[in-house]
Amino acid sequence: MTVERSAGGPRRRRQIFDAALQALARDGFEAMTIEGVAEQAGVNKTTIYRWWPSKSALLGAALLDAPLLELPLPDTGSLRGDLVELVGALVRLLTGEPAGPVARAALGAAVGDPALAMRFRAFFADRLVREQAVVDRAVARGELPEGIDTMLLMDLLAGAVWVRGIFRGLPLNDDFAREAVAAVLDGVLP
Amino acid sequence: MTVERSAGGPRRRRQIFDAALQALARDGFEAMTIEGVAEQAGVNKTTIYRWWPSKSALLGAALLDAPLLELPLPDTGSLRGDLVELVGALVRLLTGEPAGPVARAALGAAVGDPALAMRFRAFFADRLVREQAVVDRAVARGELPEGIDTMLLMDLLAGAVWVRGIFRGLPLNDDFAREAVAAVLDGVLP
Repeated sequence: MTVERSAGGPRRRRQIFDAALQALARDGFEAMTIEGVAEQAGVNKTTIYRWWPSKSALLGAALLDAPLLELPLPDTGSLRGDLVELVGALVRLLTGEPAGPVARAALGAAVGDPALAMRFRAFFADRLVREQAVVDRAVARGELPEGIDTMLLMDLLAGAVWVRGIFRGLPLNDDFAREAVAAVLDGVLP
Repeated sequence: MTVERSAGGPRRRRQIFDAALQALARDGFEAMTIEGVAEQAGVNKTTIYRWWPSKSALLGAALLDAPLLELPLPDTGSLRGDLVELVGALVRLLTGEPAGPVARAALGAAVGDPALAMRFRAFFADRLVREQAVVDRAVARGELPEGIDTMLLMDLLAGAVWVRGIFRGLPLNDDFAREAVAAVLDGVLP
Protein backbone atom coordinates (compact mmCIF):
# COMPACT_ATOMS: atom_id res chain seq x y z
CA MET A 1 0.00 0.00 0.00
CA THR A 2 1.64 3.23 -1.11
CA VAL A 3 1.31 6.65 0.47
CA GLU A 4 -0.32 7.93 -2.69
CA ARG A 5 -3.07 5.33 -2.54
CA SER A 6 -3.79 5.98 1.09
CA ALA A 7 -3.91 9.74 0.77
CA GLY A 8 -7.23 11.55 0.63
CA GLY A 9 -10.65 10.57 1.80
CA PRO A 10 -12.71 11.38 4.84
CA ARG A 11 -12.10 10.42 8.41
CA ARG A 12 -13.08 6.78 8.97
CA ARG A 13 -11.93 6.04 5.42
CA ARG A 14 -10.62 2.61 6.49
CA GLN A 15 -13.96 1.75 8.14
CA ILE A 16 -15.87 2.90 5.05
CA PHE A 17 -13.70 0.77 2.75
CA ASP A 18 -14.00 -2.29 5.01
CA ALA A 19 -17.78 -1.89 5.18
CA ALA A 20 -17.96 -1.53 1.39
CA LEU A 21 -15.94 -4.71 0.78
CA GLN A 22 -17.96 -6.64 3.35
CA ALA A 23 -21.21 -5.49 1.76
CA LEU A 24 -19.94 -6.50 -1.67
CA ALA A 25 -19.01 -10.00 -0.48
CA ARG A 26 -22.22 -10.43 1.54
CA ASP A 27 -24.88 -8.83 -0.68
CA GLY A 28 -23.29 -8.62 -4.13
CA PHE A 29 -22.72 -5.51 -6.19
CA GLU A 30 -26.33 -5.04 -7.32
CA ALA A 31 -27.87 -5.38 -3.89
CA MET A 32 -25.34 -3.46 -1.82
CA THR A 33 -26.15 0.19 -1.08
CA ILE A 34 -24.16 3.27 -0.12
CA GLU A 35 -26.67 3.80 2.71
CA GLY A 36 -25.91 0.36 4.13
CA VAL A 37 -22.17 0.96 3.91
CA ALA A 38 -22.54 4.34 5.65
CA GLU A 39 -24.58 2.83 8.46
CA GLN A 40 -22.11 0.03 9.06
CA ALA A 41 -19.14 2.40 8.96
CA GLY A 42 -20.83 4.83 11.35
CA VAL A 43 -20.80 7.80 8.98
CA ASN A 44 -23.44 9.86 7.22
CA LYS A 45 -24.14 8.74 3.67
CA THR A 46 -23.44 12.28 2.41
CA THR A 47 -19.87 11.83 3.68
CA ILE A 48 -19.44 8.89 1.32
CA TYR A 49 -21.18 10.58 -1.62
CA ARG A 50 -18.96 13.65 -1.20
CA TRP A 51 -15.85 11.55 -1.87
CA TRP A 52 -17.21 8.74 -4.06
CA PRO A 53 -20.28 9.55 -6.16
CA SER A 54 -21.20 5.93 -6.95
CA LYS A 55 -20.84 2.34 -5.77
CA SER A 56 -18.31 1.78 -8.55
CA ALA A 57 -16.18 4.72 -7.45
CA LEU A 58 -16.33 3.67 -3.80
CA LEU A 59 -15.49 0.04 -4.56
CA GLY A 60 -12.78 0.99 -7.01
CA ALA A 61 -11.06 3.05 -4.32
CA ALA A 62 -11.64 0.39 -1.65
CA LEU A 63 -10.26 -2.40 -3.85
CA LEU A 64 -7.13 -0.47 -4.85
CA ASP A 65 -6.50 0.27 -1.19
CA ALA A 66 -7.37 -3.14 0.29
CA PRO A 67 -4.55 -4.91 2.19
CA LEU A 68 -6.79 -7.99 1.78
CA LEU A 69 -6.12 -8.08 -1.95
CA GLU A 70 -2.37 -7.54 -1.85
CA LEU A 71 -0.49 -10.26 -3.68
CA PRO A 72 2.99 -10.75 -2.25
CA LEU A 73 5.74 -10.77 -4.89
CA PRO A 74 7.89 -13.88 -4.48
CA ASP A 75 11.67 -14.01 -4.86
CA THR A 76 12.61 -17.69 -4.68
CA GLY A 77 15.76 -17.47 -6.80
CA SER A 78 14.26 -19.10 -9.90
CA LEU A 79 11.65 -18.07 -12.42
CA ARG A 80 9.84 -21.38 -12.05
CA GLY A 81 9.73 -21.07 -8.28
CA ASP A 82 8.54 -17.47 -8.45
CA LEU A 83 5.74 -18.26 -10.92
CA VAL A 84 4.55 -21.27 -8.89
CA GLU A 85 4.42 -19.00 -5.83
CA LEU A 86 2.56 -16.30 -7.79
CA VAL A 87 -0.04 -18.82 -8.97
CA GLY A 88 -0.39 -20.18 -5.43
CA ALA A 89 -0.91 -16.68 -4.03
CA LEU A 90 -3.54 -15.95 -6.66
CA VAL A 91 -5.33 -19.20 -5.85
CA ARG A 92 -5.41 -18.26 -2.15
CA LEU A 93 -6.63 -14.76 -3.03
CA LEU A 94 -9.53 -16.05 -5.15
CA THR A 95 -10.56 -19.07 -3.11
CA GLY A 96 -9.38 -18.42 0.47
CA GLU A 97 -10.97 -16.52 3.33
CA PRO A 98 -11.56 -13.65 3.81
CA ALA A 99 -10.30 -12.37 0.45
CA GLY A 100 -11.99 -14.89 -1.86
CA PRO A 101 -15.61 -13.76 -1.57
CA VAL A 102 -14.57 -10.11 -1.98
CA ALA A 103 -12.32 -10.77 -4.97
CA ARG A 104 -14.83 -13.03 -6.71
CA ALA A 105 -17.76 -10.68 -6.16
CA ALA A 106 -15.75 -7.70 -7.38
CA LEU A 107 -14.43 -9.43 -10.49
CA GLY A 108 -17.83 -10.90 -11.32
CA ALA A 109 -19.51 -7.50 -10.96
CA ALA A 110 -16.85 -5.80 -13.10
CA VAL A 111 -17.87 -7.98 -16.04
CA GLY A 112 -21.25 -6.23 -16.16
CA ASP A 113 -20.36 -2.76 -14.92
CA PRO A 114 -18.10 -0.67 -17.19
CA ALA A 115 -17.32 1.89 -14.47
CA LEU A 116 -16.19 -0.81 -12.06
CA ALA A 117 -14.32 -2.59 -14.87
CA MET A 118 -12.38 0.62 -15.53
CA ARG A 119 -11.27 0.68 -11.88
CA PHE A 120 -10.06 -2.89 -12.19
CA ARG A 121 -7.96 -2.09 -15.20
CA ALA A 122 -5.88 0.21 -13.02
CA PHE A 123 -5.60 -2.62 -10.49
CA PHE A 124 -4.36 -5.10 -13.12
CA ALA A 125 -2.02 -2.57 -14.73
CA ASP A 126 -0.50 -1.81 -11.33
CA ARG A 127 -0.04 -5.55 -10.64
CA LEU A 128 1.68 -6.04 -13.99
CA VAL A 129 4.25 -3.32 -13.30
CA ARG A 130 5.20 -5.17 -10.12
CA GLU A 131 5.12 -8.64 -11.72
CA GLN A 132 7.62 -7.34 -14.26
CA ALA A 133 10.23 -7.51 -11.47
CA VAL A 134 9.92 -11.32 -11.44
CA VAL A 135 10.64 -11.44 -15.17
CA ASP A 136 13.43 -8.85 -14.97
CA ARG A 137 15.21 -10.93 -12.33
CA ALA A 138 14.88 -14.04 -14.53
CA VAL A 139 16.39 -12.13 -17.45
CA ALA A 140 19.23 -10.91 -15.21
CA ARG A 141 19.90 -14.53 -14.14
CA GLY A 142 19.97 -15.59 -17.80
CA GLU A 143 16.87 -17.78 -17.47
CA LEU A 144 14.87 -15.80 -20.01
CA PRO A 145 15.78 -13.82 -23.12
CA GLU A 146 15.08 -10.08 -23.02
CA GLY A 147 11.83 -8.82 -24.44
CA ILE A 148 9.67 -11.60 -23.07
CA ASP A 149 5.94 -10.77 -23.08
CA THR A 150 5.25 -10.51 -19.35
CA MET A 151 1.57 -9.66 -19.84
CA LEU A 152 1.00 -12.80 -21.91
CA LEU A 153 2.76 -14.95 -19.31
CA MET A 154 0.61 -13.52 -16.51
CA ASP A 155 -2.62 -13.68 -18.53
CA LEU A 156 -2.10 -17.37 -19.32
CA LEU A 157 -1.42 -18.28 -15.69
CA ALA A 158 -4.00 -16.03 -14.02
CA GLY A 159 -6.54 -16.98 -16.67
CA ALA A 160 -6.03 -20.70 -16.07
CA VAL A 161 -6.61 -20.14 -12.34
CA TRP A 162 -9.83 -18.28 -13.11
CA VAL A 163 -11.24 -20.80 -15.59
CA ARG A 164 -10.31 -23.86 -13.52
CA GLY A 165 -11.33 -22.51 -10.12
CA ILE A 166 -14.21 -20.17 -10.87
CA PHE A 167 -15.81 -21.27 -14.14
CA ARG A 168 -15.19 -25.01 -13.76
CA GLY A 169 -15.33 -24.92 -9.95
CA LEU A 170 -12.55 -27.49 -9.69
CA PRO A 171 -9.88 -27.70 -6.97
CA LEU A 172 -6.69 -25.69 -7.42
CA ASN A 173 -3.98 -27.65 -5.68
CA ASP A 174 -0.19 -27.37 -5.74
CA ASP A 175 0.03 -29.78 -8.67
CA PHE A 176 -2.13 -27.41 -10.70
CA ALA A 177 0.25 -24.50 -10.07
CA ARG A 178 3.32 -26.56 -11.00
CA GLU A 179 1.74 -28.01 -14.11
CA ALA A 180 0.39 -24.69 -15.36
CA VAL A 181 3.81 -23.05 -14.90
CA ALA A 182 5.55 -25.99 -16.60
CA ALA A 183 3.21 -25.71 -19.59
CA VAL A 184 3.99 -22.03 -20.22
CA LEU A 185 7.70 -22.32 -19.48
CA ASP A 186 8.46 -25.59 -21.29
CA GLY A 187 5.54 -25.87 -23.69
CA VAL A 188 3.45 -29.00 -24.18
CA LEU A 189 5.08 -30.03 -27.45
CA PRO A 190 7.70 -32.76 -27.12
CA MET B 1 -27.28 -28.75 -30.91
CA THR B 2 -28.16 -32.36 -30.15
CA VAL B 3 -31.59 -33.89 -30.10
CA GLU B 4 -31.22 -34.58 -26.41
CA ARG B 5 -30.63 -30.93 -25.60
CA SER B 6 -33.56 -29.79 -27.66
CA ALA B 7 -36.00 -32.30 -26.24
CA GLY B 8 -38.51 -31.26 -23.62
CA GLY B 9 -39.95 -27.91 -22.70
CA PRO B 10 -43.16 -26.13 -23.53
CA ARG B 11 -44.36 -24.83 -26.88
CA ARG B 12 -42.58 -21.58 -27.75
CA ARG B 13 -39.49 -22.94 -26.01
CA ARG B 14 -37.20 -21.27 -28.56
CA GLN B 15 -38.95 -17.90 -28.08
CA ILE B 16 -38.69 -18.23 -24.29
CA PHE B 17 -34.96 -19.01 -24.48
CA ASP B 18 -34.33 -16.14 -26.90
CA ALA B 19 -36.25 -13.72 -24.67
CA ALA B 20 -34.31 -14.94 -21.62
CA LEU B 21 -30.92 -14.45 -23.29
CA GLN B 22 -31.93 -11.01 -24.58
CA ALA B 23 -33.12 -9.98 -21.12
CA LEU B 24 -29.85 -11.20 -19.61
CA ALA B 25 -27.75 -9.19 -22.07
CA ARG B 26 -29.97 -6.09 -21.80
CA ASP B 27 -30.85 -5.95 -18.10
CA GLY B 28 -28.27 -8.19 -16.41
CA PHE B 29 -28.97 -11.25 -14.28
CA GLU B 30 -30.11 -9.39 -11.15
CA ALA B 31 -32.54 -7.07 -12.91
CA MET B 32 -34.08 -9.50 -15.40
CA THR B 33 -37.38 -11.13 -14.40
CA ILE B 34 -39.26 -14.27 -15.39
CA GLU B 35 -42.34 -12.04 -15.86
CA GLY B 36 -40.48 -9.88 -18.39
CA VAL B 37 -39.25 -12.94 -20.27
CA ALA B 38 -42.78 -14.40 -20.36
CA GLU B 39 -44.24 -11.18 -21.70
CA GLN B 40 -41.65 -10.87 -24.45
CA ALA B 41 -42.03 -14.52 -25.43
CA GLY B 42 -45.80 -14.26 -25.51
CA VAL B 43 -46.44 -16.93 -22.88
CA ASN B 44 -47.91 -16.97 -19.39
CA LYS B 45 -45.30 -16.78 -16.65
CA THR B 46 -46.71 -19.95 -15.09
CA THR B 47 -45.70 -21.78 -18.28
CA ILE B 48 -42.09 -20.82 -17.62
CA TYR B 49 -42.22 -21.59 -13.90
CA ARG B 50 -43.69 -25.03 -14.62
CA TRP B 51 -40.56 -25.99 -16.59
CA TRP B 52 -37.89 -23.85 -14.96
CA PRO B 53 -38.43 -22.85 -11.33
CA SER B 54 -35.84 -20.05 -11.26
CA LYS B 55 -33.90 -17.60 -13.41
CA SER B 56 -30.81 -19.80 -12.99
CA ALA B 57 -32.64 -22.88 -14.22
CA LEU B 58 -34.14 -21.02 -17.18
CA LEU B 59 -30.84 -19.43 -18.16
CA GLY B 60 -28.93 -22.66 -17.66
CA ALA B 61 -31.28 -24.41 -20.10
CA ALA B 62 -31.24 -21.48 -22.53
CA LEU B 63 -27.45 -21.25 -22.54
CA LEU B 64 -26.92 -24.97 -23.09
CA ASP B 65 -29.36 -24.83 -25.99
CA ALA B 66 -28.23 -21.55 -27.58
CA PRO B 67 -26.98 -21.80 -31.18
CA LEU B 68 -25.52 -18.33 -30.46
CA LEU B 69 -22.96 -19.83 -28.10
CA GLU B 70 -21.87 -22.76 -30.24
CA LEU B 71 -18.12 -22.82 -30.79
CA PRO B 72 -17.22 -24.49 -34.08
CA LEU B 73 -14.52 -27.15 -33.73
CA PRO B 74 -11.73 -26.48 -36.23
CA ASP B 75 -9.89 -29.13 -38.24
CA THR B 76 -7.06 -27.30 -40.00
CA GLY B 77 -4.68 -30.26 -40.21
CA SER B 78 -2.30 -29.04 -37.50
CA LEU B 79 -2.58 -28.64 -33.74
CA ARG B 80 -1.24 -25.09 -33.92
CA GLY B 81 -3.74 -24.13 -36.58
CA ASP B 82 -6.62 -25.73 -34.69
CA LEU B 83 -5.73 -23.99 -31.42
CA VAL B 84 -5.35 -20.58 -33.09
CA GLU B 85 -8.80 -21.10 -34.65
CA LEU B 86 -10.26 -22.16 -31.28
CA VAL B 87 -8.88 -19.03 -29.60
CA GLY B 88 -10.18 -16.85 -32.43
CA ALA B 89 -13.65 -18.40 -32.15
CA LEU B 90 -13.66 -17.82 -28.40
CA VAL B 91 -12.61 -14.19 -28.91
CA ARG B 92 -15.50 -13.69 -31.34
CA LEU B 93 -17.90 -15.40 -28.93
CA LEU B 94 -16.92 -13.17 -26.01
CA THR B 95 -16.47 -9.86 -27.82
CA GLY B 96 -18.56 -10.06 -31.00
CA GLU B 97 -22.23 -9.37 -31.63
CA PRO B 98 -24.75 -10.70 -30.80
CA ALA B 99 -23.12 -13.41 -28.65
CA GLY B 100 -20.69 -11.23 -26.67
CA PRO B 101 -23.11 -9.39 -24.39
CA VAL B 102 -24.98 -12.64 -23.63
CA ALA B 103 -21.83 -14.63 -22.93
CA ARG B 104 -20.24 -11.91 -20.80
CA ALA B 105 -23.39 -11.27 -18.78
CA ALA B 106 -23.92 -14.98 -18.18
CA LEU B 107 -20.33 -15.68 -17.14
CA GLY B 108 -20.20 -12.60 -14.92
CA ALA B 109 -23.46 -13.57 -13.20
CA ALA B 110 -22.28 -17.15 -12.69
CA VAL B 111 -19.44 -15.88 -10.51
CA GLY B 112 -21.95 -14.72 -7.90
CA ASP B 113 -24.73 -17.28 -8.35
CA PRO B 114 -23.91 -20.88 -7.38
CA ALA B 115 -26.98 -22.30 -9.14
CA LEU B 116 -26.09 -20.60 -12.39
CA ALA B 117 -22.43 -21.55 -11.92
CA MET B 118 -23.48 -25.21 -11.63
CA ARG B 119 -25.23 -24.97 -15.01
CA PHE B 120 -22.10 -23.53 -16.54
CA ARG B 121 -20.01 -26.41 -15.33
CA ALA B 122 -22.05 -28.71 -17.53
CA PHE B 123 -21.46 -26.30 -20.40
CA PHE B 124 -17.67 -26.30 -19.88
CA ALA B 125 -17.53 -30.06 -19.35
CA ASP B 126 -19.45 -30.60 -22.58
CA ARG B 127 -17.08 -28.27 -24.45
CA LEU B 128 -14.05 -30.12 -23.11
CA VAL B 129 -15.28 -33.48 -24.36
CA ARG B 130 -15.51 -32.00 -27.84
CA GLU B 131 -12.19 -30.14 -27.61
CA GLN B 132 -10.56 -33.46 -26.82
CA ALA B 133 -11.04 -34.34 -30.52
CA VAL B 134 -8.55 -31.60 -31.47
CA VAL B 135 -5.95 -33.11 -29.15
CA ASP B 136 -6.72 -36.70 -30.20
CA ARG B 137 -6.14 -35.79 -33.85
CA ALA B 138 -2.81 -34.16 -32.91
CA VAL B 139 -1.78 -37.33 -31.05
CA ALA B 140 -2.80 -39.44 -34.07
CA ARG B 141 -0.67 -37.22 -36.34
CA GLY B 142 2.28 -37.64 -33.96
CA GLU B 143 2.35 -33.96 -32.99
CA LEU B 144 1.67 -34.61 -29.31
CA PRO B 145 2.50 -37.47 -26.94
CA GLU B 146 -0.42 -39.42 -25.52
CA GLY B 147 -1.79 -38.41 -22.16
CA ILE B 148 -1.53 -34.68 -22.69
CA ASP B 149 -3.61 -32.62 -20.22
CA THR B 150 -6.30 -31.22 -22.52
CA MET B 151 -8.09 -29.37 -19.73
CA LEU B 152 -4.91 -27.51 -18.76
CA LEU B 153 -4.24 -26.57 -22.38
CA MET B 154 -7.77 -25.19 -22.77
CA ASP B 155 -7.79 -23.43 -19.40
CA LEU B 156 -4.55 -21.60 -20.19
CA LEU B 157 -5.80 -20.42 -23.58
CA ALA B 158 -9.40 -19.62 -22.64
CA GLY B 159 -8.20 -18.00 -19.43
CA ALA B 160 -5.77 -15.72 -21.27
CA VAL B 161 -8.61 -14.61 -23.55
CA TRP B 162 -10.76 -13.83 -20.52
CA VAL B 163 -8.11 -11.91 -18.55
CA ARG B 164 -6.84 -9.93 -21.55
CA GLY B 165 -10.20 -9.13 -23.11
CA ILE B 166 -12.56 -8.89 -20.15
CA PHE B 167 -10.51 -8.01 -17.06
CA ARG B 168 -7.89 -5.87 -18.83
CA GLY B 169 -10.28 -4.71 -21.57
CA LEU B 170 -7.50 -4.87 -24.16
CA PRO B 171 -7.89 -5.79 -27.84
CA LEU B 172 -7.73 -9.46 -28.81
CA ASN B 173 -6.30 -9.55 -32.31
CA ASP B 174 -4.92 -12.37 -34.45
CA ASP B 175 -1.42 -11.79 -33.07
CA PHE B 176 -2.73 -12.44 -29.58
CA ALA B 177 -4.14 -15.82 -30.62
CA ARG B 178 -0.92 -16.86 -32.35
CA GLU B 179 1.30 -15.71 -29.49
CA ALA B 180 -0.82 -17.35 -26.79
CA VAL B 181 -0.83 -20.65 -28.68
CA ALA B 182 2.94 -20.43 -29.31
CA ALA B 183 3.55 -19.86 -25.60
CA VAL B 184 1.70 -23.01 -24.50
CA LEU B 185 2.97 -25.18 -27.36
CA ASP B 186 6.61 -24.08 -27.41
CA GLY B 187 7.05 -22.57 -23.95
CA VAL B 188 8.66 -19.22 -23.26
CA LEU B 189 11.98 -20.63 -22.08
CA PRO B 190 14.76 -20.55 -24.69
